[in-house]
Amino acid sequence: MSFLADLLSTVFERRYRGAREPDAKGRSIKELCHDLLGSSGEVSGTILARLILDQYAGMDDAAKIEFFTFLVRDLGIDPPRIRDALDGFEAVPDKASYRRFLAVAEPARQELARRLNQVPGATGRLVGMRRDLLRLARDHPDFAVVDLDFRHLFSSWFNRGFLVLRPINWDSPAGILEKIIAYEAVHAIDSWDDLRRRLAPEDRRCFAFFHPSMPNEPLIFVEVALTRGIPGSVQGLLADAREVIAARDADTAVFYSISNCQAGLAGISFGNSLIKQVVADLSRELPKLSTFVTLSPIPGLARWTGEDGATLAAMKPDLLRQLAAHYLLEAKRPDGTPFDPVARFHLGNGALVHAVHADADVSPNGIAQSGGAMVNYLYDTALISQNHEGFAAAHSIAASPEVTALASAAKPKPA
Amino acid sequence: MSFLADLLSTVFERRYRGAREPDAKGRSIKELCHDLLGSSGEVSGTILARLILDQYAGMDDAAKIEFFTFLVRDLGIDPPRIRDALDGFEAVPDKASYRRFLAVAEPARQELARRLNQVPGATGRLVGMRRDLLRLARDHPDFAVVDLDFRHLFSSWFNRGFLVLRPINWDSPAGILEKIIAYEAVHAIDSWDDLRRRLAPEDRRCFAFFHPSMPNEPLIFVEVALTRGIPGSVQGLLADAREVIAARDADTAVFYSISNCQAGLAGISFGNSLIKQVVADLSRELPKLSTFVTLSPIPGLARWTGEDGATLAAMKPDLLRQLAAHYLLEAKRPDGTPFDPVARFHLGNGALVHAVHADADVSPNGIAQSGGAMVNYLYDTALISQNHEGFAAAHSIAASPEVTALASAAKPKPA
Amino acid sequence: MSFLADLLSTVFERRYRGAREPDAKGRSIKELCHDLLGSSGEVSGTILARLILDQYAGMDDAAKIEFFTFLVRDLGIDPPRIRDALDGFEAVPDKASYRRFLAVAEPARQELARRLNQVPGATGRLVGMRRDLLRLARDHPDFAVVDLDFRHLFSSWFNRGFLVLRPINWDSPAGILEKIIAYEAVHAIDSWDDLRRRLAPEDRRCFAFFHPSMPNEPLIFVEVALTRGIPGSVQGLLADAREVIAARDADTAVFYSISNCQAGLAGISFGNSLIKQVVADLSRELPKLSTFVTLSPIPGLARWTGEDGATLAAMKPDLLRQLAAHYLLEAKRPDGTPFDPVARFHLGNGALVHAVHADADVSPNGIAQSGGAMVNYLYDTALISQNHEGFAAAHSIAASPEVTALASAAKPKPA
Amino acid sequence: MSFLADLLSTVFERRYRGAREPDAKGRSIKELCHDLLGSSGEVSGTILARLILDQYAGMDDAAKIEFFTFLVRDLGIDPPRIRDALDGFEAVPDKASYRRFLAVAEPARQELARRLNQVPGATGRLVGMRRDLLRLARDHPDFAVVDLDFRHLFSSWFNRGFLVLRPINWDSPAGILEKIIAYEAVHAIDSWDDLRRRLAPEDRRCFAFFHPSMPNEPLIFVEVALTRGIPGSVQGLLADAREVIAARDADTAVFYSISNCQAGLAGISFGNSLIKQVVADLSRELPKLSTFVTLSPIPGLARWTGEDGATLAAMKPDLLRQLAAHYLLEAKRPDGTPFDPVARFHLGNGALVHAVHADADVSPNGIAQSGGAMVNYLYDTALISQNHEGFAAAHSIAASPEVTALASAAKPKPA
Repeated sequence: MSFLADLLSTVFERRYRGAREPDAKGRSIKELCHDLLGSSGEVSGTILARLILDQYAGMDDAAKIEFFTFLVRDLGIDPPRIRDALDGFEAVPDKASYRRFLAVAEPARQELARRLNQVPGATGRLVGMRRDLLRLARDHPDFAVVDLDFRHLFSSWFNRGFLVLRPINWDSPAGILEKIIAYEAVHAIDSWDDLRRRLAPEDRRCFAFFHPSMPNEPLIFVEVALTRGIPGSVQGLLADAREVIAARDADTAVFYSISNCQAGLAGISFGNSLIKQVVADLSRELPKLSTFVTLSPIPGLARWTGEDGATLAAMKPDLLRQLAAHYLLEAKRPDGTPFDPVARFHLGNGALVHAVHADADVSPNGIAQSGGAMVNYLYDTALISQNHEGFAAAHSIAASPEVTALASAAKPKPA
Repeated sequence: MSFLADLLSTVFERRYRGAREPDAKGRSIKELCHDLLGSSGEVSGTILARLILDQYAGMDDAAKIEFFTFLVRDLGIDPPRIRDALDGFEAVPDKASYRRFLAVAEPARQELARRLNQVPGATGRLVGMRRDLLRLARDHPDFAVVDLDFRHLFSSWFNRGFLVLRPINWDSPAGILEKIIAYEAVHAIDSWDDLRRRLAPEDRRCFAFFHPSMPNEPLIFVEVALTRGIPGSVQGLLADAREVIAARDADTAVFYSISNCQAGLAGISFGNSLIKQVVADLSRELPKLSTFVTLSPIPGLARWTGEDGATLAAMKPDLLRQLAAHYLLEAKRPDGTPFDPVARFHLGNGALVHAVHADADVSPNGIAQSGGAMVNYLYDTALISQNHEGFAAAHSIAASPEVTALASAAKPKPA
Repeated sequence: MSFLADLLSTVFERRYRGAREPDAKGRSIKELCHDLLGSSGEVSGTILARLILDQYAGMDDAAKIEFFTFLVRDLGIDPPRIRDALDGFEAVPDKASYRRFLAVAEPARQELARRLNQVPGATGRLVGMRRDLLRLARDHPDFAVVDLDFRHLFSSWFNRGFLVLRPINWDSPAGILEKIIAYEAVHAIDSWDDLRRRLAPEDRRCFAFFHPSMPNEPLIFVEVALTRGIPGSVQGLLADAREVIAARDADTAVFYSISNCQAGLAGISFGNSLIKQVVADLSRELPKLSTFVTLSPIPGLARWTGEDGATLAAMKPDLLRQLAAHYLLEAKRPDGTPFDPVARFHLGNGALVHAVHADADVSPNGIAQSGGAMVNYLYDTALISQNHEGFAAAHSIAASPEVTALASAAKPKPA
Repeated sequence: MSFLADLLSTVFERRYRGAREPDAKGRSIKELCHDLLGSSGEVSGTILARLILDQYAGMDDAAKIEFFTFLVRDLGIDPPRIRDALDGFEAVPDKASYRRFLAVAEPARQELARRLNQVPGATGRLVGMRRDLLRLARDHPDFAVVDLDFRHLFSSWFNRGFLVLRPINWDSPAGILEKIIAYEAVHAIDSWDDLRRRLAPEDRRCFAFFHPSMPNEPLIFVEVALTRGIPGSVQGLLADAREVIAARDADTAVFYSISNCQAGLAGISFGNSLIKQVVADLSRELPKLSTFVTLSPIPGLARWTGEDGATLAAMKPDLLRQLAAHYLLEAKRPDGTPFDPVARFHLGNGALVHAVHADADVSPNGIAQSGGAMVNYLYDTALISQNHEGFAAAHSIAASPEVTALASAAKPKPA
């Protein structure tokens, strides 16, 4: 903290230590929030914001629950005041009446979050606050309204236009790489050696989105393998002693793992933009790349069949592939969208189901969720728009003839 | 634009060229805006957003007026729907009812701006759009409501926590320096040589705020002179052949020019934060600095006295100083705040009126506005908080004994 | 200078102020040089080196002449000692005898320069020292031996492998750009606006070599125009209101100005490498570029013809072109190489004489040196090696059929 | 490799594949070296240099021995020609005769190395070539003369003025950090977790010298602990669960490990400069630091005593300290310098022996070399110059009174 900030804090906190309370901790976080919302200038605002964030950082779950309850009850909207403002606006729809409406239609907790965000480094701390909120909301459904406000703000702050795509490689800072190890959610990274195998060879790439206010925190990242032909096994891709090819000789880019990093940004969607921009950047760098495809898990297969993964893994490969194809094309939720969450993501982005593979992820997790089956979703630039619109309008699922045939050949879902 | 974006555009724009219209230009910007607000995915969203921004960029004022009128009439709030949502929320205040409320309480044009902002480089273009809006609103008072929405969004996007302070010096990119020349609003920069005199010597500094999404556009900048003692003439500070001192020998930092750069960010306040952070950074670098002071114009003096500046300039220096002191301490607007806009800014930040000088800005502009008089506002870190609060609560103006005495000695305002 | 360096200097300089002399200035630069050559450690070496460089910086020409005379007389080679060492090496050619030989075969002034170079920033100061030396050597031919030592060292220090190519554009630091303005030696840059016209448009490029130890000093730079077709007039290229083309639409890169920046690096050749690397970099960025060509002055034409430039400029264009072609292909120095220095440079690099133009540089300088005629040298990648070897082996000059025909048609040199 | 370079190579290598040999490999490296030394231009030079370096890279030891033998025999000096040139210079000591002398007095292999160095990345490859040379020279003492030439060149290329100091921390590229792990020669780094303990806490620092032409290769690095008071145990410093202190609260900087990274730069001294600059940089950042000290091994103690380390480790701590003090102050080589190599380094830099500790390095290596004893060398800025000169002139060793007393109390060296 800087010299002046120090001085200012001293001067200012004295007031909070002085007149009313024995010490700064004596003034409650609720009172500080009201002070911050009432303060006219930035001079005191930043200091108040810092005090609030620091006090929050020291809280246990009980105190956090009390704080979020305060946000629900005291800093929400006030319907009668909104109705008054609406009446005023309808009577004379001018600048003054509209300003009044805007002021009351937004809950005070949104303005509170914006003012807290003035402190350097606050953005990441607010993302952490929402992570807490989501965790605690499981037992406190009334917190959901606060989460909607966070979500509204974060959608604005983490707007695609503000994100920065950065390659992650073996020259990236160790402090970021250890987060890649920690956040990899699809195919765990065992060690720094394992990480190097995924980053250092010239036929392996990784890209992440960052926000300028959280420069050391990846938001989401994707791991890519450059290959000749479309692979059907993730263990093959990640093998220790595999042959590295020259990047310029690759014809295919395989997105084999996409991981969200920030629990506090759940529901703020970046994945689609990430894939699009990585496809664009790789195309420019390596003009010979002609195929952009995923090698994706089928996380809902075992659950949907009601079998355990070991049973599926013991099936004949072709039968498992038929089953997986059938599942991907036919298993639906009540709203008509695919049962499989990864399928929803890629099909919603305009991909099509290109191929399914047995024995493709033989890790314990891969066996457990799908008996080892995996799927390639293909991003065919000539079809993306059409696929996307078909899916958006009618939940229609685009698939290759081979997968369609497999799905048709499938026996009915095991009883 | 990238390979894939090209491809996607081709595919996508074909639709807009195809089915319904003879060509993309045939589809109106209003229809594109409705399409963008209705689109579910980002695939098409970015392309639509780009089309809208490009179409806007080609518009003349008549078309812009029509566009803003559309934003006023078609993308504002709908009071009956808001009342319905409020009823629902009051009946069952849960997540679903709150989500409905949030969805209708915000005018669609705010969501439109957020979606437009997905396009790389869009932030600066939206700032430019508001600049147009403010200009055209002079003759179209109904545009004021749209401006309030822009202001709401920009307050969030240009939150202090997202801004980056960068020193501007003779090693800065020429592309940025030419903007400093263009935007300097207080003491015009004549030439690149003049600029070098303000940036290159070690006792001259300049700092600007930038937003990460507009990396080549300073938002606001301040010019600082490091001096021994408090100076009383800006021509002295800017003299061609002056003696340069070692930065570490300076005891005073003089903020002699603060310029906002973006007309489209009018009313989004950064100045206060800028001064605070520059004071903090300079304090850390040069621990011997003990005085932080401005050398500021008194833009309202001649207007308030009703005299022209030449008449004021012809007064005895001491009488002009008395007059200026009196004006700064006593001349008020109906709401009780100072008549002088620069005084309002610095006093609101917690500065005090430290000294007034005659013959301090003898440029044509300096003579015209204040007969050459200038003022030092002092940022005394021990008093900032107290001054700020006194000003905020009671419009009380802090001043040095010397200035207070000058003001008392002033004859009543010339009749 | 750092804290410790300060301390060390204080401690160390005390000795030089103490025991033997009244003050540091009392100890002569010659004594300091002997001290530096005799010092075993780096502790004192850096301080001595700094004292020497600082003392040199304050010298007038008379003192510099005395210093260089000292380098000639006292820090040169000692033939008898070299003969001794050779005898020893021939008797027993082992490590010890070879080490003795290396120690005496190199003049002490080379080691002196290396030790001076330990001081941060010394490299540029030594380059400046050689600039002085070259200037003063005009009247002191005995300084030539010192220059040969500088040249030997600089060839090693400024080895191609240590240089860094950087694009110079409108985002480059102003401090570097003002040097580009100052150093442009072929077509003077009038103003910052003129500079912007050469750097900012997307069909204009500039590249410079830098040395890591002189990061703010370009060593040599080249200005490039991207065009459709090969231009025949430099005023056309530099016109204020010309049409800018998209870089990706250009088929030709025109090297229209190459300037050496450092008089102290005269004779250390970079130009060839610069052109080669710029061709390589542009080819990679803009694959449609197929022609790499210069638009070069013909500085020796008027001198060689014995006419003044105005007379040449008054000739019929076709006759001037014939004369220029004849001059470029036939005018030779006693050693058989071309009379024209620019021709020697490009032909030595493997270029060929592609076309000659009248009315191509109508600036006063262009008229004076060649009656306004200019020449395109073509770098045809398929022929560079062959041209280079032909020129190196037999001084044969490659030229297009058109230029060859022009030269043949030329009347004999005007008498 | 770039487009043009590709083209040029194709054109040029064709000659080497064409006329004389069946293919490029058929042309021997010796012939290529003569070609390179004979080539006049850079056009062909870079390609030849690349061919030579590539051919070298593929060699086994037998071929390397043949290559180095070629350098010894064919590219050395020619005494008769040197004598001739000396005669000429003595007869007429002018530029021409001196140029002739310089040309023949330097062995051709030095010029060869300079020309090889034109290839991008060549510097590191030449450092690797010397590493090979030093390894093979153990069995080929005649290679020593080649090494002296390398050493001469590298002293010039790796001159202090060309090196760059960079902090190494947890934000450094992983590719550099893994080299720190590999090169740590004093206290081995076990794992990335161990590395993070040495780099990430704010009271731990690391700095390395780099050369601009080898940006990914540290040349030498030092690890520093910021402490309160002088520590006497390296295991204490490196403990997993120790208390981290605020950097600004430290009064002491402890240099506890210095490692050279490049076997091919053996004998090119950087360590002294590294310590000096790190002391200077830390002093500036943390003005409260008042003590700069090492915690160093005593690698020669056990060897000198003739005891094994376990026996020393079993001694009473005070007796071991006496023994160590005695060893450091009294054990000398025939030339009068200390027996201990680490002592020679630090005492030569101007440090003094400040304290000795038993049980200070209880790792197997620490026990083996010194029974666990370690020593603090103190860099006292007021005494460095005096200590350095005393050591350089008379091998006198500066020590604290405590260490002097310990040494005096020591029993005679165990028989």
